[in-house]
Amino acid sequence: MSSRPTQKDVAIRAGVSQATVSMVLGGASTASVSAETVQRIRAVAEELGYVPNRFAQALKTRRTMTIACIVPDITNPFYPGLIRGVQKIAQERDYDVIAVNTDGVPARERHFLDWARQGRVDGVIGVFFTVRVQDFVPLLDIGIPVVRIESAKKRGGDLAIDDIFVDSHAAAIAVTEHLIAKGHRRIAMVAGTGGPQGVRVEGYREVLGRAGIEPLVIIENDFSEMAGSRAAEAILATGYGPTAIFAANDLMAIGVMQALRERGIDIPDQIAVFGFDDISAARLVTPPLSTVAQFQDRMGEKAAEILIDRLSGSRSGGGTTEEMPFQLIERGTV
Amino acid sequence: MSSRPTQKDVAIRAGVSQATVSMVLGGASTASVSAETVQRIRAVAEELGYVPNRFAQALKTRRTMTIACIVPDITNPFYPGLIRGVQKIAQERDYDVIAVNTDGVPARERHFLDWARQGRVDGVIGVFFTVRVQDFVPLLDIGIPVVRIESAKKRGGDLAIDDIFVDSHAAAIAVTEHLIAKGHRRIAMVAGTGGPQGVRVEGYREVLGRAGIEPLVIIENDFSEMAGSRAAEAILATGYGPTAIFAANDLMAIGVMQALRERGIDIPDQIAVFGFDDISAARLVTPPLSTVAQFQDRMGEKAAEILIDRLSGSRSGGGTTEEMPFQLIERGTV
Repeated sequence: MSSRPTQKDVAIRAGVSQATVSMVLGGASTASVSAETVQRIRAVAEELGYVPNRFAQALKTRRTMTIACIVPDITNPFYPGLIRGVQKIAQERDYDVIAVNTDGVPARERHFLDWARQGRVDGVIGVFFTVRVQDFVPLLDIGIPVVRIESAKKRGGDLAIDDIFVDSHAAAIAVTEHLIAKGHRRIAMVAGTGGPQGVRVEGYREVLGRAGIEPLVIIENDFSEMAGSRAAEAILATGYGPTAIFAANDLMAIGVMQALRERGIDIPDQIAVFGFDDISAARLVTPPLSTVAQFQDRMGEKAAEILIDRLSGSRSGGGTTEEMPFQLIERGTV
Repeated sequence: MSSRPTQKDVAIRAGVSQATVSMVLGGASTASVSAETVQRIRAVAEELGYVPNRFAQALKTRRTMTIACIVPDITNPFYPGLIRGVQKIAQERDYDVIAVNTDGVPARERHFLDWARQGRVDGVIGVFFTVRVQDFVPLLDIGIPVVRIESAKKRGGDLAIDDIFVDSHAAAIAVTEHLIAKGHRRIAMVAGTGGPQGVRVEGYREVLGRAGIEPLVIIENDFSEMAGSRAAEAILATGYGPTAIFAANDLMAIGVMQALRERGIDIPDQIAVFGFDDISAARLVTPPLSTVAQFQDRMGEKAAEILIDRLSGSRSGGGTTEEMPFQLIERGTV
């Protein structure tokens, strides 16, 4: 027997089916169970020290003690890092965390908002690429709070949506200014479509515009290493002659590095590379990738704190917006 | 209005609260709603082309159309790859996938088995480090099938648990024999505690024993890069003088590489390194890491196929065990 007695242990000792024990101890109707059996099950449960698990109780209180983390790509290490941060706080406060993956596409993002309305979770923390603020109303209407992780300050209006954001636009400006300060005058950028990439490209364009430097932006369909490699090939084919390539995320930056290495181009002596996200692989490539840290674990922790404060009632009223810091991490690629 | 009308759209048009629409269209009791209002809501729903979402129906049929993926470490890229494979098949067959993280510790593994019994999911796919076959009985008893991802052939007995496994023991033998064939006679191994690491260490010990080579195994408390770096330092401190280090997973192998690089030890000329898992970072480090591919995406796909066949009734009877292939991937570290 495991250290904590289960309903099965009770069932064996009481000589009844586990389904019967579940009915009696789980708080369901016991109309179909004889009073004698109910008494025997309760006596055995006490004898064994059986503690009803909190989910059975949660079903009665209509609380699931579960938080959904809705992310666009679970295989991009940025998001598991965020989920881990959410889990750290959630566990301390007795909530479970479940993660779901939307691929950042509209149908699946909306699908999981519907899904979250079905009594499965108490609250939602999410990174959404396509849904709009109105899409959260059905959740808020039934008392399911939402914390969004954003890449720019958004106005939630009067809705009780809390936002956490890193100013991606300011970070992209900082990266581009840093590259110019290092003497670069031919700086290309690679990005995917959707998500936080747009504001990063804008920041890059602004700085180059002010500096009078011609920009070159390659937009790929996704955010993968493969996309980064393809984008690097495209940049080299243009004759732009970059001395630096800024990628809108680390996976693409690593793909850029692979493409450059295959062509025998030295990083950073011939072409510098800068990423965004500080995923763990950034430290592992050679040379280690210079990038923008967003501290996804801390973002996850903060999001969980805000959400659980909403759930416990210690936070109420209109939505809030909290800015989290970014930091340029210079390693070996610039 | 979004392309698909929601209950909210119906509520606005019908001039009632969304809660009322939800009651009427969601199949709940409408005792508190006037017959006239019920009729008006139904008419508006038809006019707008409202389609009740399948979760409302699922609640009635007591099916959740949701599969839980229970994994020990969502930040180890092996597991997101597995989850992605599960999701690929699940989506085709109209199931959602939720992922939960146990840290591989007994209390949390058992906790999520309890959790999965609370009507939240239809089936479970999991990588379990500590729970035993008996721990799944409560799930099976209430018709929730379980597919386990294992690192060795296990006997599920008569229980309807399906196992998918890669023979980690055979793979570790293959790696160790490969290193010996390359001329190595001082081969150290690093591993974490628990999980699939044990059988990998056994395979290594068997081969060295047969070859008359003295083994050196460093066991760390976890499976991280940091643990790999610590283990490499420990190996170097022994005076064993390894020409090769075999790590029981890629994260540890990458940590070994970092420690060797910091000491100016050339990989592979002075010390060769071999990993296990073929996570995406294995291709990204320099030199790229030689490792054992387990094709986690295919394992996830296979697990989802088996589980959904159980759920659809097209598979029944006792548990099955299916072996999946591994492959040694030689890159630049040996």
